[in-house]
Amino acid sequence: MKAVIYQGERSIAVEERPDPTIQAPGDAIVRITTTNICGSDLHMYEGRTEVEEGTVLGHENMGVVEEVGPGVTRVQKGDRVSVPFNIACGTCPSCLGGWTSFCERTNPIEGMQGAAYGYANMGPYDGGQAELLRVPYADFNLLGLPEGTDFENDFTMLSDIFPTGWHGTELAGMQPGDSVVVYGAGPVGLMAAHSAMIRGASEVFVVDQHPDRLKLAASIDCIPVDFSQTDPVEVVLEHTKGTGADRGVEAVGWQAHDPAGEEHPELVLDNLVKSVKAHGGLGVVGVYVPADPKSPGAAAEGRIGFDYGTFFTKGQQMGTGQAPVKRYNRQLRDLIIAGRATPSFLVSHELGLDEAPVGYDNFDKRLDGWTKVLLKP
Amino acid sequence: MKAVIYQGERSIAVEERPDPTIQAPGDAIVRITTTNICGSDLHMYEGRTEVEEGTVLGHENMGVVEEVGPGVTRVQKGDRVSVPFNIACGTCPSCLGGWTSFCERTNPIEGMQGAAYGYANMGPYDGGQAELLRVPYADFNLLGLPEGTDFENDFTMLSDIFPTGWHGTELAGMQPGDSVVVYGAGPVGLMAAHSAMIRGASEVFVVDQHPDRLKLAASIDCIPVDFSQTDPVEVVLEHTKGTGADRGVEAVGWQAHDPAGEEHPELVLDNLVKSVKAHGGLGVVGVYVPADPKSPGAAAEGRIGFDYGTFFTKGQQMGTGQAPVKRYNRQLRDLIIAGRATPSFLVSHELGLDEAPVGYDNFDKRLDGWTKVLLKP
Amino acid sequence: MKAVIYQGERSIAVEERPDPTIQAPGDAIVRITTTNICGSDLHMYEGRTEVEEGTVLGHENMGVVEEVGPGVTRVQKGDRVSVPFNIACGTCPSCLGGWTSFCERTNPIEGMQGAAYGYANMGPYDGGQAELLRVPYADFNLLGLPEGTDFENDFTMLSDIFPTGWHGTELAGMQPGDSVVVYGAGPVGLMAAHSAMIRGASEVFVVDQHPDRLKLAASIDCIPVDFSQTDPVEVVLEHTKGTGADRGVEAVGWQAHDPAGEEHPELVLDNLVKSVKAHGGLGVVGVYVPADPKSPGAAAEGRIGFDYGTFFTKGQQMGTGQAPVKRYNRQLRDLIIAGRATPSFLVSHELGLDEAPVGYDNFDKRLDGWTKVLLKP
Amino acid sequence: MKAVIYQGERSIAVEERPDPTIQAPGDAIVRITTTNICGSDLHMYEGRTEVEEGTVLGHENMGVVEEVGPGVTRVQKGDRVSVPFNIACGTCPSCLGGWTSFCERTNPIEGMQGAAYGYANMGPYDGGQAELLRVPYADFNLLGLPEGTDFENDFTMLSDIFPTGWHGTELAGMQPGDSVVVYGAGPVGLMAAHSAMIRGASEVFVVDQHPDRLKLAASIDCIPVDFSQTDPVEVVLEHTKGTGADRGVEAVGWQAHDPAGEEHPELVLDNLVKSVKAHGGLGVVGVYVPADPKSPGAAAEGRIGFDYGTFFTKGQQMGTGQAPVKRYNRQLRDLIIAGRATPSFLVSHELGLDEAPVGYDNFDKRLDGWTKVLLKP
Repeated sequence: MKAVIYQGERSIAVEERPDPTIQAPGDAIVRITTTNICGSDLHMYEGRTEVEEGTVLGHENMGVVEEVGPGVTRVQKGDRVSVPFNIACGTCPSCLGGWTSFCERTNPIEGMQGAAYGYANMGPYDGGQAELLRVPYADFNLLGLPEGTDFENDFTMLSDIFPTGWHGTELAGMQPGDSVVVYGAGPVGLMAAHSAMIRGASEVFVVDQHPDRLKLAASIDCIPVDFSQTDPVEVVLEHTKGTGADRGVEAVGWQAHDPAGEEHPELVLDNLVKSVKAHGGLGVVGVYVPADPKSPGAAAEGRIGFDYGTFFTKGQQMGTGQAPVKRYNRQLRDLIIAGRATPSFLVSHELGLDEAPVGYDNFDKRLDGWTKVLLKP
Repeated sequence: MKAVIYQGERSIAVEERPDPTIQAPGDAIVRITTTNICGSDLHMYEGRTEVEEGTVLGHENMGVVEEVGPGVTRVQKGDRVSVPFNIACGTCPSCLGGWTSFCERTNPIEGMQGAAYGYANMGPYDGGQAELLRVPYADFNLLGLPEGTDFENDFTMLSDIFPTGWHGTELAGMQPGDSVVVYGAGPVGLMAAHSAMIRGASEVFVVDQHPDRLKLAASIDCIPVDFSQTDPVEVVLEHTKGTGADRGVEAVGWQAHDPAGEEHPELVLDNLVKSVKAHGGLGVVGVYVPADPKSPGAAAEGRIGFDYGTFFTKGQQMGTGQAPVKRYNRQLRDLIIAGRATPSFLVSHELGLDEAPVGYDNFDKRLDGWTKVLLKP
Repeated sequence: MKAVIYQGERSIAVEERPDPTIQAPGDAIVRITTTNICGSDLHMYEGRTEVEEGTVLGHENMGVVEEVGPGVTRVQKGDRVSVPFNIACGTCPSCLGGWTSFCERTNPIEGMQGAAYGYANMGPYDGGQAELLRVPYADFNLLGLPEGTDFENDFTMLSDIFPTGWHGTELAGMQPGDSVVVYGAGPVGLMAAHSAMIRGASEVFVVDQHPDRLKLAASIDCIPVDFSQTDPVEVVLEHTKGTGADRGVEAVGWQAHDPAGEEHPELVLDNLVKSVKAHGGLGVVGVYVPADPKSPGAAAEGRIGFDYGTFFTKGQQMGTGQAPVKRYNRQLRDLIIAGRATPSFLVSHELGLDEAPVGYDNFDKRLDGWTKVLLKP
Repeated sequence: MKAVIYQGERSIAVEERPDPTIQAPGDAIVRITTTNICGSDLHMYEGRTEVEEGTVLGHENMGVVEEVGPGVTRVQKGDRVSVPFNIACGTCPSCLGGWTSFCERTNPIEGMQGAAYGYANMGPYDGGQAELLRVPYADFNLLGLPEGTDFENDFTMLSDIFPTGWHGTELAGMQPGDSVVVYGAGPVGLMAAHSAMIRGASEVFVVDQHPDRLKLAASIDCIPVDFSQTDPVEVVLEHTKGTGADRGVEAVGWQAHDPAGEEHPELVLDNLVKSVKAHGGLGVVGVYVPADPKSPGAAAEGRIGFDYGTFFTKGQQMGTGQAPVKRYNRQLRDLIIAGRATPSFLVSHELGLDEAPVGYDNFDKRLDGWTKVLLKP
């Protein structure tokens, strides 16, 4: 089969690889119909992680079941499925508690919890930017979809970014009627904003500096805030009579930078604390890492010196971390089918697998109009 | 009346002051029967805050209602009452949501939410380390207690530290059966540990270095951990098969220091992150401040550079801030009456009001055996 | 002033009454701008309750503050306000817990909790179908609205039916993505359906037999089900592949009847149990009463023999009772202002106070097109 | 192997049966060390259900894994395990939502959700009152226990009655500090009372008429109430100043009877409604059935005409149904290991498998001192 291979910093190739095979009774093989390039793929692409050269990338996968192992009793050959990016066993304490993002059995790296396809530090699993993908614990992991091809570009968001954006609103403790500020209008930020609207937010502010992204935010009835033109904290405080938004979502991560492009890892957290009300909630789904030699100052060791004193004084609460996709993907699927969620609104490009290198390159450069790239093997 | 007055860094005096009077229809005057010295009084005593000289200190108050204003309809003269340290209006959005610690009307300082008696930055309210205390919005704020003098030393913990410790377990998201690690065995930490046991924790670890405090922790069936002798993270990980405790409570604050006494403001947060499990919860009730010129490095500006990258990677959640006492004090009162909670176990000294200076001094020095000081006006 | 007076079964008059006055320091007088006729007013109108002749009716009130008592510190003369139908003290345990519908101090009737304006068994309070209304504990009870007259017909739903419908979805445990079946497309049922849509339901079924009401349900993107033409249980089960809806709301009450008009008090509860999934949630906001001599069989004594064995076997959960309006009205107000909620869609008639008798009569007869009647004093 | 066989109303025999075998890749075979007689076994024993003659009874099982199928990856031969009474697949929507008691795949009976071992209407699964038991979906269902034989009589309560009692408190919405009334001091009622105490109840009332059971209630610091001597509603109202208990648990079921032994299926529900406060919560874990020809009146068809009008007027909430054991059994195991839970306190008899007939007979007769019977194969 053909597969997208990481070859080192800013280098991607499409190569032939052997087809995956059933390795355990609970495995399934999925023929990929759509697989997306994720913002966190760019972390690897940019050489900011320890991902190994030769890895097949791709953790946002969907397709049709091609084969199942003898222990699989629920999923069947021919089922159309979404593949959550978390690889989870379904029977450890974390999985039983709904925290599939911290599965205690699928990541063999000492001290690590949580596994994923084609991802740095997340276990020895090939990604799905390829024609075929092996899925462990298939009965537990795979989400059934209606037969056919309807909603393909909506359903493909179910593997990661729609649940991840939704998780941001959940970690923030969002309730209907709340005002919400989302930092970052990349794919995850836009999905958080879409989620907040679906869940009955009164107002959603979306902060970014890229016009194409801000335009998408406006298209889903959110209030775009261009932080290269104005102070987002002031905008939110003005709209909320000085109180601050009820909830905030961080969808930027440790590479947060000012309009000039200089990284200030504490920048977005500081703004969140200031623009959210006292006893408000913050949901952090933008990625922060324990170590990155390319980060400035103490952030190289994962230390982010944000204004914790104000955070405490305001009595805010903060949830963090990778989303447990399974906790949300069924309901989100049903909202798509009912026509109440349309996460495909941010898709800008559909490419063949062979075009992956240009997709990575243009998405990484934030070229105008490259808001979300799907690959169609 | 006599009152305990702050006179500057490490200086306290007992002086005569005019009796307080009804200033608004909703006020009540309470004759104080017991008022405690709090660990946060020591922040002021040590000159680490901006409290003004001449302030009457004391926010842990209880007593008997002496007089009520014409708008008071529930509370009556002669009622025995506990006075929550938060002064709350009962009708603003924060109060209605149960967040009396962030009342939007009682603190006249621009941009501040939440008021308290005799406390830096918490509004122009005299404290209760005195013979009498004026209580605004008395119907809303005062908690009724059974007539008489029973449980006096238990009930006196209802104004602050018992609800504050309980809030720590609540912010941490504690559920029955959880293991919990509490950093700090001062009064609030011990109350958090007591709370966790009452709420059905399986195991509670309490970390400190003072033998008298650790002995108290052991006396309520918790596992004392002396961080001057052993690494508390290792102890917790060993007991939990490497997973970490389900929940952690921070009851130390920004003056966290190593066994040698050197301040490392990020020390306890780092240990919490390491000793609590992935997707576990952290409740921070130890105080962190937006600015303290005497703190080392960036902490002088409220910036605490703890290991945020690991915090995110573990997907932990953190709640912070002053406790909304009213959310808990009724149930805690009922637990005391039923004999199921006995927070007086940590009382070491009962002094007259005139002895307040020696009480402050010895408690501040953490003299052996000075675990909690009550004043009896 | 003029006021709408109950004069006995199916008899209403508009009469002169003395203006209300401040009776306690916490009172306010509100000049009514809009006051609605509620479905529960019809229970009284039809002689199915013990309301006394001579009572001023009306518990769905809004207007402008005319005067405040000396203990009122938050609300001011000239404020535009919504008046929750529950009269609550704000300081008893029920109010502190957010259950203003069960205030322990405002209803003087022995053994009763919860008070309301102009309502059977809910205390000695005049209703607001009048020019002026006295509001006790005004600081606690009144909700501020933006100055002017914008959204008048939306805001008027904040006093009762919008929060009551919302409470139905809350009692049912609704989560975003859920399918919901609502029994009854009267004002409360339609508000429940509107609420479910705002909160992110995937599908909402609304069951009734009146074409005008079913048309309104369709107008807010719900699925109308005419139970005079089809079995609603079958419809829901078919749409949900036999599983049943995730949640159900009862907005009919003890006068539930078949298409022929015969009362079967257990009819709707039976249908709810059958059309909601196992371990699903039921929210009952349609009124059931402890005694009504005009009800058939054991229902005369409040006994409703629904299929409890199936309810248990399916492991369903059920919440009931009058809504605590204050828990929801602020957020709902903000949703109206943001344009995300438009509860005025069901308004069919705006009448002067003098036209109240015809309003009662036509609404009671369910005349086609009389879906919600507002009075404008 | 030897097994306990149902042979018709009040007839039990111990017979030889073929050893169970692995039938699917996910199966395990468990060698039973302890298996209990449950109150719901008595429903079958008394001929009040449709269980078939020849069924191996027993759904409260624990033991040691003897063999696992090829698809089992977590559980291993030699593991000591508790077997939840619910047989659940782990991958259907109900199981993923934590509702293993309503598994959508394991019960082949049309329209039924939820399966169990040796139980009427719960699927074709042999019970565990035998030497060996086949466990489907073993990785998901089995709970690991520490090696050896410690806590055997505590751990054996993890398969059903301890989680079921706990579920009762959960369905009732219990919070620490609450007062709780439990109707029924059979094994489940006593476990509910034990659970409430562990979770921090202030006071727990336990209502029954059997002195041996009431003595056990008193032994765990609860307040025993003998309903043959006094009106339990009055007792609870007196203790709670007329307000009622915060929460109530029903642990009796549809065979509720007065002191004279006459069945009144609505009796306990009526008492619950009256003795619990307005807006309080009721958890119903006593079994109610959709049909029982031997029940009086409408209860023969599952209709229970309790005082619903008062239930609604008080705004109470009610949860029902079989417990999803897996949601609780891990934490309860940890509480046992930590010495904080000792559910074995109610064990009165340990019998060999051959003695099962006398165990059933005496337990069914509520012979004095026969509070809980364990079988040791």
